[in-house]
Amino acid sequence: MRSTMMDYPLVLPSILKRAKDAHPHKEIVTKWHDESIQRYTYGDFYKRTIRLMNALRKAGVKPEEAIATFCLNHSVHLELYFAIPSIRAVLHTINVRLFPEQLVYIINEAKDKFIFVDKSLATALEKNLDQIKDVQKFIIIDDKENIPFPNLPNSISYEDFLATGDDVERFEAIDEFEAACICYTSGTTGNPKGVVYSHRSTYLHSMSVCMGDALALCENETVLPVVPMFHVNSWGIPFASVMTGCKLVFPGKHLLGAALAELLESEEVTLTAGVPTVWNVLYQHLKKTKYNLKLHTMVVGGSAAPRGLIEGFEKDFGISILHAWGMTETSPVGTVSRPRSFMKNWEDEERYSYRAKQGVAMAGVEIRAIDDDGKDVPKDGHTPGELLVRGPWITGSYRSGVSPESFTADGWFRTGDVVVLDQYGYMQITDRKKDLIKTRGEWISSVDMENLVMADPDVLEAAVVGRKDPVRDEAPVVFIVPVEGKSVDPKKILERLKEHFAHWQLPKMDDIRSVPSVPKTSVGKFDKKILRKQLEE
Amino acid sequence: MRSTMMDYPLVLPSILKRAKDAHPHKEIVTKWHDESIQRYTYGDFYKRTIRLMNALRKAGVKPEEAIATFCLNHSVHLELYFAIPSIRAVLHTINVRLFPEQLVYIINEAKDKFIFVDKSLATALEKNLDQIKDVQKFIIIDDKENIPFPNLPNSISYEDFLATGDDVERFEAIDEFEAACICYTSGTTGNPKGVVYSHRSTYLHSMSVCMGDALALCENETVLPVVPMFHVNSWGIPFASVMTGCKLVFPGKHLLGAALAELLESEEVTLTAGVPTVWNVLYQHLKKTKYNLKLHTMVVGGSAAPRGLIEGFEKDFGISILHAWGMTETSPVGTVSRPRSFMKNWEDEERYSYRAKQGVAMAGVEIRAIDDDGKDVPKDGHTPGELLVRGPWITGSYRSGVSPESFTADGWFRTGDVVVLDQYGYMQITDRKKDLIKTRGEWISSVDMENLVMADPDVLEAAVVGRKDPVRDEAPVVFIVPVEGKSVDPKKILERLKEHFAHWQLPKMDDIRSVPSVPKTSVGKFDKKILRKQLEE
Repeated sequence: MRSTMMDYPLVLPSILKRAKDAHPHKEIVTKWHDESIQRYTYGDFYKRTIRLMNALRKAGVKPEEAIATFCLNHSVHLELYFAIPSIRAVLHTINVRLFPEQLVYIINEAKDKFIFVDKSLATALEKNLDQIKDVQKFIIIDDKENIPFPNLPNSISYEDFLATGDDVERFEAIDEFEAACICYTSGTTGNPKGVVYSHRSTYLHSMSVCMGDALALCENETVLPVVPMFHVNSWGIPFASVMTGCKLVFPGKHLLGAALAELLESEEVTLTAGVPTVWNVLYQHLKKTKYNLKLHTMVVGGSAAPRGLIEGFEKDFGISILHAWGMTETSPVGTVSRPRSFMKNWEDEERYSYRAKQGVAMAGVEIRAIDDDGKDVPKDGHTPGELLVRGPWITGSYRSGVSPESFTADGWFRTGDVVVLDQYGYMQITDRKKDLIKTRGEWISSVDMENLVMADPDVLEAAVVGRKDPVRDEAPVVFIVPVEGKSVDPKKILERLKEHFAHWQLPKMDDIRSVPSVPKTSVGKFDKKILRKQLEE
Repeated sequence: MRSTMMDYPLVLPSILKRAKDAHPHKEIVTKWHDESIQRYTYGDFYKRTIRLMNALRKAGVKPEEAIATFCLNHSVHLELYFAIPSIRAVLHTINVRLFPEQLVYIINEAKDKFIFVDKSLATALEKNLDQIKDVQKFIIIDDKENIPFPNLPNSISYEDFLATGDDVERFEAIDEFEAACICYTSGTTGNPKGVVYSHRSTYLHSMSVCMGDALALCENETVLPVVPMFHVNSWGIPFASVMTGCKLVFPGKHLLGAALAELLESEEVTLTAGVPTVWNVLYQHLKKTKYNLKLHTMVVGGSAAPRGLIEGFEKDFGISILHAWGMTETSPVGTVSRPRSFMKNWEDEERYSYRAKQGVAMAGVEIRAIDDDGKDVPKDGHTPGELLVRGPWITGSYRSGVSPESFTADGWFRTGDVVVLDQYGYMQITDRKKDLIKTRGEWISSVDMENLVMADPDVLEAAVVGRKDPVRDEAPVVFIVPVEGKSVDPKKILERLKEHFAHWQLPKMDDIRSVPSVPKTSVGKFDKKILRKQLEE
């Protein structure tokens, strides 16, 4: 017996068409660089995206070619998100915080044909222009004065470029396995690695993000993505939002405490998403200044949210932090820590310890953890193993076949994260494999130690790395950024650590160091490579 | 540039595996025929389903063969839902209310090899045994006395059959486009037509059912599907439930007012789903007897819920009726009428009129409406057209290629429903094409007239069909079932109709008839074919 169902492909233009068919009157808001607020509807967005598709075609863009964006979060970036894949080209969202050598590397590796760039960011490209190979055109966004950049060849303002396209709706047949977007890993070791999403994988990821047990995005929400659209597609929120027709609010550069809080308040945002450091700063700000927020959920990923922050937002402001885990390689959402029905009557202590875990695999994603011999570790909540993942929106390789050792022979992606799994399907990251600290032959989790230190109310951020030690192999060094106006006593920190670590695992008193800031990678994670280098020097 | 994503198929065993991996401790409850309550976990369910897969393999079931179920809603039916497609056979859920000739027809058409049958329903098969061709084995469910049916050849009790399988987890590679399930249309004209779902279509439908703007199924809900598992896969709820791990409550035969209300109360059900007549009866019962219900959402489909019922449940009990539309051909959910953000401050009048519409297309489904010339009708909320649908869980043909006229050359399914669309993407059914009444050359919607009549608080049900009329071509005849203990005055009904219909469209006074009941089809819809035949005689 054979199926009678339609062979209907899962492709991004289908999501785009919903903007016109299902919610053309709903609103998309952008706060631009110059503080101006732009409002338009999904219907307007649809029309401009059709025009952009035709402008790209007219400019000679062919299927499979990479077209890059070098932008913050705004409505034009959303137009590019849909127009580029809808004409079968590949959207390459460049991380604007990359170091020059990485920036040049990925532009050349992807063979970007055009780059759409925010006017405020154009100098970063100008500086490296001599090394950039294939780019034929620079399209300048938010260029109200319409002054092309003299140093960027063939530069044109976005609105002028858009005007070259007509309004005719042309949708071509797309195979769902075709490439839609490329993102590069942040590359803490070696060159960034390319992960190429298909129409299918991004479509399915968008559906899954909207599911009740994931982010539960829906038409009733007003969503402000703080996580940059240049970082793993802003965790898929732009695609999922157009699918649902939720009101979208783009913050542009307005990501700091007060500017962000004002936008959350004035646009009545209900759901937002970003890395812990953003929320840490916002939390400190909200403690000082009162806002009337409609916010109920804050999705946190990128790195682990400290338990104290989760508890603080919930108890002080009634805002729920929804912990999620993912990587560039996983599109990115892989697990979500949404409170489960059976936790309702649990004690605070246990409930918050679960909220701080990375959560349960989304429907569609399979996870397991293996030991050094490749055997599955028990799901007992304490035996660590390396996390393996597979599913329809997980990458099966890197572009050009680099790092084949990241994939098992039977088709799992090796995440490099060390985790524990438990009976309820929860996953908790204990460390990155390469960040474990080896002391007297035993492993210490740097993340466990960081979380303990960050539980101190005077600590804003803490990073732990190992330094070489003649007696213990490696010894932990704790870098602490105190909350503004506070100082942190190393003795107090040591006392706290003593409750959970053996004496030979503890840092020395002068290895507990207060610093004004911790170096971060281009995606806002602690850059432990730099910290380790500093210690060596 | 080529995608690097895994080629990971969308197949039903992936959903099954989540029962073990993500929520093995959650509960599945069945109220059996004999009033006994069975509780087991998703972990138990998983183990029994593995065993069932192996028992089926051992009994010689091969890929593509149809294995039928003839059962109500219970845990064993759920095991069959997953075991049969997981070994690449095809689940054929037979509607137990079919008339004998249809029953025999579909069993022979699908070439069912085995039939799993509830003991309480076995006589219906026994009676027609001489005409059933290919069935080799009957497996009797809920057979506590273990007495095989003498007249059913090779009959065996379910538990004995299950015991023939071992516990080894064997999952074979499945192409997502392979057949997983077959359902037959209820066939109000001609023979029932087969619709064969693929693994992919059912998987995607399950994801979409869990999306926030659809049924928003999630782990926190306790779900009781009243809609039968023999009817379009219980609207996909069993598959979606196993995907999320919500607590599942199966009512068996306990579908009437008091028995249903007690189960909703004792198991703390939060979400349920069924046809309007079930909720009509329940509403009357709840008005008389007080229960402590946790119920917040009642999904209604199959036919239109009267606006009065929607308002009544919301105002009297705080229960939200979620109107949905679908057909066997659409897996079945195609549109959902979830209140949209911009309706929050609308007046009751307008808000309820929207709640009574069939709603907005789910993400993934495309809808349009065309006139007799095949042109799209305007989305103005009043111009009717025939509804066309397409999407990844819509059928592209019927089994054996029957009724090719139901599909357009460019790949849309013609639903036969007459609808209006509006600026907000809402669809409202005004009639079935064949149920329109032609009066003096103009069309009257029988559904519009029924809804007006049912708005009378003394009317339980109303069905309107046309009778031949020498002057007007056709004239409407209104059949009314009054609420228990009430009577309905035809004059009052006529007054009500006068406000919305022209005088030449109105029924004659003696064409407004009170009847004890309206004949129904096997799926609980008004059987207008029988009503029209009665009028002719």
